[in-house]
Amino acid sequence: MLEDLKKEVYEANMQLPKLGLVTFTWGNVSGIDREKGLFVIKPSGVDYEDLTSDDMVVVNLKGEVVEGKMNPSSDTPTHTVLYNEFPTLGGIVHTHSPWGVAFAEAGMDIQALGTTHADTFYDDVPVSDALTKEEIESAYEENTGKVIVRTFKERGLDPDAVPAVLVRQHGPFAWGPTPAKAVYNAKVLEVVAEMNYHALTLTYDNIHVPQFLLDKHYYRKHGKNAYYGQNNAKSKDRATHEK
Amino acid sequence: MLEDLKKEVYEANMQLPKLGLVTFTWGNVSGIDREKGLFVIKPSGVDYEDLTSDDMVVVNLKGEVVEGKMNPSSDTPTHTVLYNEFPTLGGIVHTHSPWGVAFAEAGMDIQALGTTHADTFYDDVPVSDALTKEEIESAYEENTGKVIVRTFKERGLDPDAVPAVLVRQHGPFAWGPTPAKAVYNAKVLEVVAEMNYHALTLTYDNIHVPQFLLDKHYYRKHGKNAYYGQNNAKSKDRATHEK
Amino acid sequence: MLEDLKKEVYEANMQLPKLGLVTFTWGNVSGIDREKGLFVIKPSGVDYEDLTSDDMVVVNLKGEVVEGKMNPSSDTPTHTVLYNEFPTLGGIVHTHSPWGVAFAEAGMDIQALGTTHADTFYDDVPVSDALTKEEIESAYEENTGKVIVRTFKERGLDPDAVPAVLVRQHGPFAWGPTPAKAVYNAKVLEVVAEMNYHALTLTYDNIHVPQFLLDKHYYRKHGKNAYYGQNNAKSKDRATHEK
Amino acid sequence: MLEDLKKEVYEANMQLPKLGLVTFTWGNVSGIDREKGLFVIKPSGVDYEDLTSDDMVVVNLKGEVVEGKMNPSSDTPTHTVLYNEFPTLGGIVHTHSPWGVAFAEAGMDIQALGTTHADTFYDDVPVSDALTKEEIESAYEENTGKVIVRTFKERGLDPDAVPAVLVRQHGPFAWGPTPAKAVYNAKVLEVVAEMNYHALTLTYDNIHVPQFLLDKHYYRKHGKNAYYGQNNAKSKDRATHEK
Repeated sequence: MLEDLKKEVYEANMQLPKLGLVTFTWGNVSGIDREKGLFVIKPSGVDYEDLTSDDMVVVNLKGEVVEGKMNPSSDTPTHTVLYNEFPTLGGIVHTHSPWGVAFAEAGMDIQALGTTHADTFYDDVPVSDALTKEEIESAYEENTGKVIVRTFKERGLDPDAVPAVLVRQHGPFAWGPTPAKAVYNAKVLEVVAEMNYHALTLTYDNIHVPQFLLDKHYYRKHGKNAYYGQNNAKSKDRATHEK
Repeated sequence: MLEDLKKEVYEANMQLPKLGLVTFTWGNVSGIDREKGLFVIKPSGVDYEDLTSDDMVVVNLKGEVVEGKMNPSSDTPTHTVLYNEFPTLGGIVHTHSPWGVAFAEAGMDIQALGTTHADTFYDDVPVSDALTKEEIESAYEENTGKVIVRTFKERGLDPDAVPAVLVRQHGPFAWGPTPAKAVYNAKVLEVVAEMNYHALTLTYDNIHVPQFLLDKHYYRKHGKNAYYGQNNAKSKDRATHEK
Repeated sequence: MLEDLKKEVYEANMQLPKLGLVTFTWGNVSGIDREKGLFVIKPSGVDYEDLTSDDMVVVNLKGEVVEGKMNPSSDTPTHTVLYNEFPTLGGIVHTHSPWGVAFAEAGMDIQALGTTHADTFYDDVPVSDALTKEEIESAYEENTGKVIVRTFKERGLDPDAVPAVLVRQHGPFAWGPTPAKAVYNAKVLEVVAEMNYHALTLTYDNIHVPQFLLDKHYYRKHGKNAYYGQNNAKSKDRATHEK
Repeated sequence: MLEDLKKEVYEANMQLPKLGLVTFTWGNVSGIDREKGLFVIKPSGVDYEDLTSDDMVVVNLKGEVVEGKMNPSSDTPTHTVLYNEFPTLGGIVHTHSPWGVAFAEAGMDIQALGTTHADTFYDDVPVSDALTKEEIESAYEENTGKVIVRTFKERGLDPDAVPAVLVRQHGPFAWGPTPAKAVYNAKVLEVVAEMNYHALTLTYDNIHVPQFLLDKHYYRKHGKNAYYGQNNAKSKDRATHEK
């Protein structure tokens, strides 16, 4: 069942340790088949070196396991909410990458300070509200998804243009049209969080970039007028290119 | 004598350089056989690349060497105190990992700032008092153990729920039900210390998490209602799962 | 066409991931044949592990592709301006290396604080002005080159003596007499940016070095009285030696 | 000539990149044969991957090359001064390791803040005065040695008890009874500089350790009452043990 997607999700998961985004088992990637309304996700708490493509768990959009011999990631209800509420998402990743977590714990957005950010994110990467006692005590993981959606609605953000969020007191979630692209975006978030930390602690000036720089750099890589990369079939499926 | 435990302790020691927790020989792991009242510990000052399972030294709960051709770790009296005073401990690790040491030198607890912390530590990781002149000049390593125990008693902490400490002006000790789990906890301490440093230097707000977040995340992974990971035999002995 | 130069440029590009200067495809190196008036540059958005010497694109000094099956780097117009305006340049490199970017985002020069800097840069590495809305919206990459040239003219800097710049809100460009030397200079920039960050955040004193230290260290490695290294044919083409 | 020492010095040099202490060729180790009054040093500006034991250069205590087909390190006059003025030194190392350089540039001692420091350094690692214009313009490298010696005399430091220094605006020199031990001390300096940076930027309290902690930890590893490590022939020549 969904063997190609399982392989794709498995390979995206294996990119997490390779890109330095996870310690131990603290991360998970999922990918969805929109036609079938099913998504595939990493099992909970399994070491990356033991993981196989067959361990991937198939889940429906109610969050119910449809196939799989292991428990799915404990964050599965968060993925479920995001797939339901953000219909363009093809893949989702959650990590505890250290720079992203530092901003989530500090309760600070990852501001757009330069072109490295603008190439991938068309606005600041927002930090969500903290979950309330009630939201944490019941249906916690589902409420994590809901607070992400609420953050995007309240701030008028488009999840395609800002494909990541920091859940306050927790850490980053990122997404994209494919699982590989979601992982790519999670790595960009970590890199720009590191750059932001150092830039912000060097100066007390307002160093946020202007909108016209975001316009230029974001659309250099995204949309129909993009001119970064190779416009040929070979490059279409690469993580470094837009959908 | 205790060949299986020696192998377990040897392998836990070898995880220290692999996880980036030690420079040169600055770390040691021990593990205990509670029935026999004997523990096994790394020899003092031996390079990790030269270490073998046979080099492990067997010590009784008075801190006396029972078997072994080498001197045990100079920190053996600290381990002895901890095994005597904290009867649930199965393994202990000491390192000079750089982020943990920075907090120990600054004399600051590793505060609970997010879920990465709460998944493993049910409260702040405490920094002990500094040892006095008298405590340092005689029975220094034993007094290091005593100041850890005193810190936990004074602050009403449960060593099972907060399986690590920072000895002020020195560095971290961590523990767990097994040597492997002790090493896991030492790595978590290092990771959350790094996150804490960056979060705390980004903001002057109070960013300590509320108790209900600690309750949720700690018990998601620990105790009889835990639901993180795989509830099957294969996963029982993994470092990422609770005892 | 220009096979030797393509190989040289290819190898210089492959140094970028090896030296930790790039994430994903975010960097490019070019090299010029001054007699032919043609330069060779990395194609746009291609993964380093897929790159071959044959993928390199040949461009003339009007910025037009002369040979190559792929699109050249989207930064090609910047390279073109620099080769035209700085006639001694043999190679150019652009990266998003994280310490360099942090200073570019903070809008701060990399000040000369020690001999590590003075061995390579005879003055502070300047940060350019931010590009204006008009400069960004049309001929953006060309204007990036122009703002670099303007920065050097306004500040009276010699591009041979200060072989790098930070484009504000963007990141570093470095250059040298050869592509390999340009990459060497890009790495030095990253290392001294890291040192600067830590030195500047440790103290609020003015710690800029005096001119006589720049004189001594720069000319120890550069010019006819240089005495660092080996004065023999074997060493002439090494990145660690002056042209 | 001095083949064993050449091999020893070669191997100590090769530890520098392995321990993350050098970028490019920015480091050198020497070792001395006190009976013959000759020392062996790395040639100037040679890549570590090209280096062989035969490339090592033999120099006498006037700083004159006695044997070798290459130029010795440009820092040879500094080594010469130190061997003449500090008669117990068996090996010397100079690096531009980034944390050590940051303190040298900030003009700050590496204070004794914990046991990691006290295990190797019996006092703060001092930063020297900056060299004057006259000291830099003539006999620069020799004057670098002299300012180190002056720093130790003015502050009443014993080079055996504090086997390293920061040359202001430049970087660390470390030494020891053997070339391998000098490299070990250079690595300890880098590690404690990193810990110091983070501890000092976390708190504005005075966190210097008391003298009795220095006494305890230094003499736990050094001198006739040392009890760290293995008292057997096998361990005598290890870098982790005192002379």
